[in-house]
Formats: sequence, C-alpha cells, structure tokens
Amino acid sequence: MDAEAKKRALRLFTYGLYVMTAANGDEVAAGTINWVSQASFTPPLIMVGVKADSHLHQLVEQSGLFALNILGQDQKAMAQDFFKPSKREGMLLNGHPFTFGQASHAPVFPECPATVEAKLLHAVKAGDHTVFVAEVVEAEVRQPEAKPLEMWDTGWFYGG
Amino acid sequence: MDAEAKKRALRLFTYGLYVMTAANGDEVAAGTINWVSQASFTPPLIMVGVKADSHLHQLVEQSGLFALNILGQDQKAMAQDFFKPSKREGMLLNGHPFTFGQASHAPVFPECPATVEAKLLHAVKAGDHTVFVAEVVEAEVRQPEAKPLEMWDTGWFYGG
Repeated sequence: MDAEAKKRALRLFTYGLYVMTAANGDEVAAGTINWVSQASFTPPLIMVGVKADSHLHQLVEQSGLFALNILGQDQKAMAQDFFKPSKREGMLLNGHPFTFGQASHAPVFPECPATVEAKLLHAVKAGDHTVFVAEVVEAEVRQPEAKPLEMWDTGWFYGG
Repeated sequence: MDAEAKKRALRLFTYGLYVMTAANGDEVAAGTINWVSQASFTPPLIMVGVKADSHLHQLVEQSGLFALNILGQDQKAMAQDFFKPSKREGMLLNGHPFTFGQASHAPVFPECPATVEAKLLHAVKAGDHTVFVAEVVEAEVRQPEAKPLEMWDTGWFYGG
C-alpha cells in the first residue's frame, strides 16, 4: 500500500467536531474529537475512536460512561480550547461552564447546541485509538436550529 | 430519555457519503452508507456501521473484506443509485463501471475520487447495524483535489 495514497484517501472522510467528556468522582477529562458516528437505531448506539493513552480514555473505562457535546458552527474556538489538557476550576472546564450530566455524571456544556450521554457497551482495542461502542441513554437539544461545526470548515485534519 | 431530543441530537452528527462494497466469488453487493470514521492511525483502522440484515453485511462476513468508495461532491446521483438493491450487469454495478479491488476483490469504482480497501478485524453486533472495525490494506486516490459529498449538502438524513 502506498502510504501517501492511504493518507490522502483517509483525509477525504467527512467529520463533525465534538467535545467528549467523562468523569470518575471528582476527576474529569474532556477532549475535542472527530472520530464519531451513530452505529445503530435500535438500540441507539454510537461509536467513537478515542486515543488509547489519554486521560479521557482512562475515565471512560473506569466509569463506563461519557458525554458527547456537539459543537456548533460558531464554536471553533471552543474546539481549540479542548485540544489542551483538561483543567478544572470550580464549575469551569478549560474556561467553559459545565454541569454534571444526569445519566453519565460527565461534564455537559450548556453553551453547546446539543449533548448526548452514553453508556459503554463494548471497547475494541486494536490500534492507537480504542473504538468505544455505547448506548445513548440521555440527550438534550438546546438550539434546535443550530448547524454543527464541520471539520472541513476549520482547515484542520485529524486522520490519514 | 426524550425520544425527540435523542433523534434531533443524533441528527446533528456530521457525515460523508460512501459506496461500500463487498464480494464473495462472483456475488457482489454495494450500498451507500454514511456511518463511517477512521478509528486508528497505527495500524490504519476504520469503523463502519452496516445494516445487520443486508446482503452487503452478509458478504463482508463471508469474505472478511470490503471496499469504501468515497463519493465526490458532484456524485449525489451515484449515492442515490446505491440506495437501490445491487444489480450487476457484466462489469457494471447499478449502471456504474467497476473493477475488482486488488486487496479486497470488492467492487471499486474508477469514477470515485478515492477508494480504500479493508480487512475485517472485529465485528460488534449490539444493534440493528453491526460495527465493523477493519484495517486499511489498500488505497487509491484518483482525484487529489476532489471535495467529498457531505450529507449536509444532500438534504438527507440517516441517523436519529
């Protein structure tokens, strides 16, 4: 396989951007991710690829729960804020106000247009990222007319 | 959980569109899908959600191989052609010329900007779609400057 062709082809995949979060007691982690998709209607499943050596990964494994905060098209700066390591100050995470999700106890950001909370069902550990397959157990939509932030509009890549 | 909130939140996920194919000997299947993401850099893994009762699903399980043909932004009509059942006539599939991929023996469409071929590693069967986690073993880019077809630009939804 030609490594350059592999990289270019995989960079033609289309993604949104999401701040994924998890908690274990008072410990919280958050990170901007894009390897996200629905994976079933019934039950409602999602699949996410999470860096295996990340703190977020560790808290998802410990709690078996996580939240996905969907970023709106005007939230590129917020996406950037969660490329940095998670830093909690009171009820601020990397400077953004959050609450604890009812179903997941993971950080939920009221400023995002929507959030889903999910319960881990399966973890496939075959590469440098783990595939978490999880059931959506809670959902909140705050801005029904919002359009999501798309990777193509940011000029960024995470893939290849 | 509020069913309407769950549907609306999941419909804020962002997707591309892909014609996924598989073969088992002379038997071939193809379908337009959108539940697709990369899942690891090293090794290069992808994850796809495929309807459990589809012919495509059956051939992926039988062969352990598949191809993903990435649709370009001008290929909405081709996406529609593969919502229909697969019909092969010689080296045409639903009217589109194809070749057999070198690594996967799955149908590859020269008119698509890029194709990746993948070898199945894991299948997570937890819902009405199966999560296939697979390693990219071949890749071809025919139109390096192409932009992909995005679900948001079609007015379609598959999710919720």
